[in-house]
Amino acid sequence: MRIALAQLNYIIGDFELNTGKIIQTIESCRQKGADLVVFAELSVCGYPPRDFLEFNDFIDKSYAAVQTIASHCHGIAAIVGAPSRNPDAKGKNLFNSAWLLAEGKIQALAHKALLPTYDIFDEYRYFEPNRRFECVSLKGVKIALTICEDIWNLVPDPLYISNPMDVLALQSPDIMINIAASPFNYDQQQTRLGILRANTVQYKIPLIYVNQAGAQTELLFDGNSCAVDIAGNITGHCRAFTEDTVIIDFDPSSRSLVSDTPVATRSTSKIALIHDALVMGIRDYFTKMGFKKAILGLSGGIDSAVTLALAAEALGKENVYAVLLPSEFSSDHSINDAVALAQNLGCIYDTISIKDGYTSILGSLQPYFNNLPFNVAEENIQARVRAIILMGLANKFGYILLNTSNKSEAAVGYGTLYGDMCGGISVLGDVYKTDVYGLANYINREHEIIPVNSIVKPPSAELRPGQKDSDSLPDYEILDQILYNYIELRQSPSDLVAADFDEATVKRVLRMVNMNEWKRHQTPPILRVSPKAFGQGRRMPIVGRYLA
Amino acid sequence: MRIALAQLNYIIGDFELNTGKIIQTIESCRQKGADLVVFAELSVCGYPPRDFLEFNDFIDKSYAAVQTIASHCHGIAAIVGAPSRNPDAKGKNLFNSAWLLAEGKIQALAHKALLPTYDIFDEYRYFEPNRRFECVSLKGVKIALTICEDIWNLVPDPLYISNPMDVLALQSPDIMINIAASPFNYDQQQTRLGILRANTVQYKIPLIYVNQAGAQTELLFDGNSCAVDIAGNITGHCRAFTEDTVIIDFDPSSRSLVSDTPVATRSTSKIALIHDALVMGIRDYFTKMGFKKAILGLSGGIDSAVTLALAAEALGKENVYAVLLPSEFSSDHSINDAVALAQNLGCIYDTISIKDGYTSILGSLQPYFNNLPFNVAEENIQARVRAIILMGLANKFGYILLNTSNKSEAAVGYGTLYGDMCGGISVLGDVYKTDVYGLANYINREHEIIPVNSIVKPPSAELRPGQKDSDSLPDYEILDQILYNYIELRQSPSDLVAADFDEATVKRVLRMVNMNEWKRHQTPPILRVSPKAFGQGRRMPIVGRYLA
Repeated sequence: MRIALAQLNYIIGDFELNTGKIIQTIESCRQKGADLVVFAELSVCGYPPRDFLEFNDFIDKSYAAVQTIASHCHGIAAIVGAPSRNPDAKGKNLFNSAWLLAEGKIQALAHKALLPTYDIFDEYRYFEPNRRFECVSLKGVKIALTICEDIWNLVPDPLYISNPMDVLALQSPDIMINIAASPFNYDQQQTRLGILRANTVQYKIPLIYVNQAGAQTELLFDGNSCAVDIAGNITGHCRAFTEDTVIIDFDPSSRSLVSDTPVATRSTSKIALIHDALVMGIRDYFTKMGFKKAILGLSGGIDSAVTLALAAEALGKENVYAVLLPSEFSSDHSINDAVALAQNLGCIYDTISIKDGYTSILGSLQPYFNNLPFNVAEENIQARVRAIILMGLANKFGYILLNTSNKSEAAVGYGTLYGDMCGGISVLGDVYKTDVYGLANYINREHEIIPVNSIVKPPSAELRPGQKDSDSLPDYEILDQILYNYIELRQSPSDLVAADFDEATVKRVLRMVNMNEWKRHQTPPILRVSPKAFGQGRRMPIVGRYLA
Repeated sequence: MRIALAQLNYIIGDFELNTGKIIQTIESCRQKGADLVVFAELSVCGYPPRDFLEFNDFIDKSYAAVQTIASHCHGIAAIVGAPSRNPDAKGKNLFNSAWLLAEGKIQALAHKALLPTYDIFDEYRYFEPNRRFECVSLKGVKIALTICEDIWNLVPDPLYISNPMDVLALQSPDIMINIAASPFNYDQQQTRLGILRANTVQYKIPLIYVNQAGAQTELLFDGNSCAVDIAGNITGHCRAFTEDTVIIDFDPSSRSLVSDTPVATRSTSKIALIHDALVMGIRDYFTKMGFKKAILGLSGGIDSAVTLALAAEALGKENVYAVLLPSEFSSDHSINDAVALAQNLGCIYDTISIKDGYTSILGSLQPYFNNLPFNVAEENIQARVRAIILMGLANKFGYILLNTSNKSEAAVGYGTLYGDMCGGISVLGDVYKTDVYGLANYINREHEIIPVNSIVKPPSAELRPGQKDSDSLPDYEILDQILYNYIELRQSPSDLVAADFDEATVKRVLRMVNMNEWKRHQTPPILRVSPKAFGQGRRMPIVGRYLA
């Protein structure tokens, strides 16, 4: 049996586009002699559809799209993902289903049993878990058809009390097919391969795994669809971070899986993965929002430099507009470094001083500020005048503003709300400062693009004379470790102190993280590259006093 | 048996404060001869604790707090809510539990079975559902102890496949006790009473129901704890929107419930409920954030007028600072109406022209804007200069900025991000424009506080000469109906057209709603008063093309 792994990039709710892509892929795979084309979880409506699932009309449109796709399945079968209605009056109204389409009709459905409801996942919000398991058949091949999380429970501390494959395996299937929507983080591919292999080894059944590619706002899907034999070998593999279709020949008697394309070796360093993911994330955000051009404020510092370089790669240098917004506190080297970078990349750039705007707004406030000392109020006004200028240009000419804050700053609230925290999308909001340096060096891996001076100088917001980040924050090496242990690992203050971090520093940093929830609540969506990003995957009370 | 319904206002994660309040209430109820004091769901840690539940240290602290409370239960018993660890290796790590404390010790636990995971609820994110049901006993009284949603499945289209009370009822309990964290919306109390009565009538068992009071950022808890007899009569009732403790004498032989306080009649109009809820919401947001003083921009229009009046009631007129920020497009009557309102309320107010800031920022942009016609870019600059000034004052003097946008504007994206969409909390973001008028009239019910002119004049953003909302939006009577049918009722375009709305208008409005998800993503938390508010209870894709 010839099986195609169709790893596509979908647009949520664009049934016409998704259906068109799926049908086109079915046609091209038919020409390659495929018996079956497998698409990702909820491929018909796009993943995650979120609360669109609560609209009857959305579900009706999805049903109609499945019928249209089925009507194109002649001489070839397809497995697609789409919601289906729960016929039982009790329980949630929908299932998350895999649909087997063949001979112009819907042949069978398999519903998802294990509904991820943690981090960025909300599936029990919408779906009833499946409780009846039956293999589906195609041309005499018995398929254990499951959906993503259904095969992820083979772990020491399982999140669910039962494994669908334990039931399905009793029916002696020839092959497992798992359709997925499994988002990227820099650890995910390693974890995922471990899980896929654990399944083929545990059940002694080969596995076809199909994920989607592309970004859905903050969620980045790396694809990495693959075929795994019963020894746990990867015998076929789609490319990461892009659409790709790979053909696999499955021999039911020998249970072998043979690919038409060699299994590619892929870059595996954490920083390289983050780089590729962010470039895809920026590109898809713009494409799917219907925009082409980005604007950003270029300070001469490392964060905006890395953001600009990534955006130029994602959108083309001609579509990225860098604006230097110096104040009286900006250093000459900052301006020179910013200009050098824009020139290295070949981006359009302009320099607009914030002096007039800042002075005049401060003048309006002077009667009320009286002679109170310069403090964070004046610092914030500078950052906000920058934002007004950038947004003015964005609104006038149709740019989207890129946010350039990093995860360390976002964590401790080191940034101005409605100032440098503005933007349509945050590129580095899930990248700790120490990893931003890693990205800068990676971008410079062949030749200097980001001026070395931007990399080596001490970080500063330049909002008052001689200001350095280290005036108010611990060194980033220390800060980032504390943040990682608290945010990603959910360690306690005593865990951190036991790991030899200074107690006062720990207390101060954790307090800053928890006190700044209200600020992060109003920030743009953040491209997610870690296992625990700020945003929908980390839901904290705003009014709360734990460690605060 | 004498049972106290202890309806308190908790702070999430403030174990010391919550424990102190609970112990104090136990002491005072002991003095009134109570045998048992009942507190709300997750009262020990505060509800909703959200992802704090993922921190082991948080759970440890909650366990310690429960032990402390238990050690005060001598001669009296208490039921409190707190998470408990799941001893089984399979499934989620926690239960959402009710703890029976007596004789200085933990006597029994009852875990929640039905875990609301829809709208603003995320409980399956954290908790394993209970599958074993057993009544608990106190002084020979058998209690069916359940948690909130556990008794909400007695409806025609049930969300869960089984009812915990069906199992517990077989054990012939004398009384049902349900501890809850049931947030307000203007329909909720009626729905809730229906559910409570349905349970007592169905199982022929009287019911004690204890909810929490107070606001947790956007979630407003109205309390309304009560005792319901087997005929469905309310025989005891705590006051709405405030802490209250009511004593009930329960006679197991007659199954009667007799209260120490008469059942109060309460205001029931939708507008009056919204008013009371918003005042509590503002007050608790400030108290729990540790702030006292609010600032807001007062335009002379209806939204900022209503927000100011509500804030003055919540925080005291001396704690609310109104700033008039006229531009060249502001009408004289707007300024006069704003001044009149501030004077009627007795609030401090100032007038700061945005002309200098606007002119000077526009001057900085002139070389780039060239002579392109005035458009939304210039309009937004005005709104953003206002925001800078307000935030400057807020930062300098420790105010929190109140957002004054209404739900109709938020829905269609009629507002400037980083401009009038700024603020620490949105007061009217869940109130449609037509209901904002209702609130204005309600505030004026005894005498004119909000100038009638602010109520009767045609709404305008006053960002260009002669601008009216009706230039770019349908009349609010029509708009709000379309929005309600789409947002609250999840109707489809064809449903709306069938209900006689103009097809082109429907299409345009729904498109505006879906296209502006990215804007709403960056807005402040919105005090929730409807069954479907923007914010955590409505989760939509940002990049998506359904009806867009």
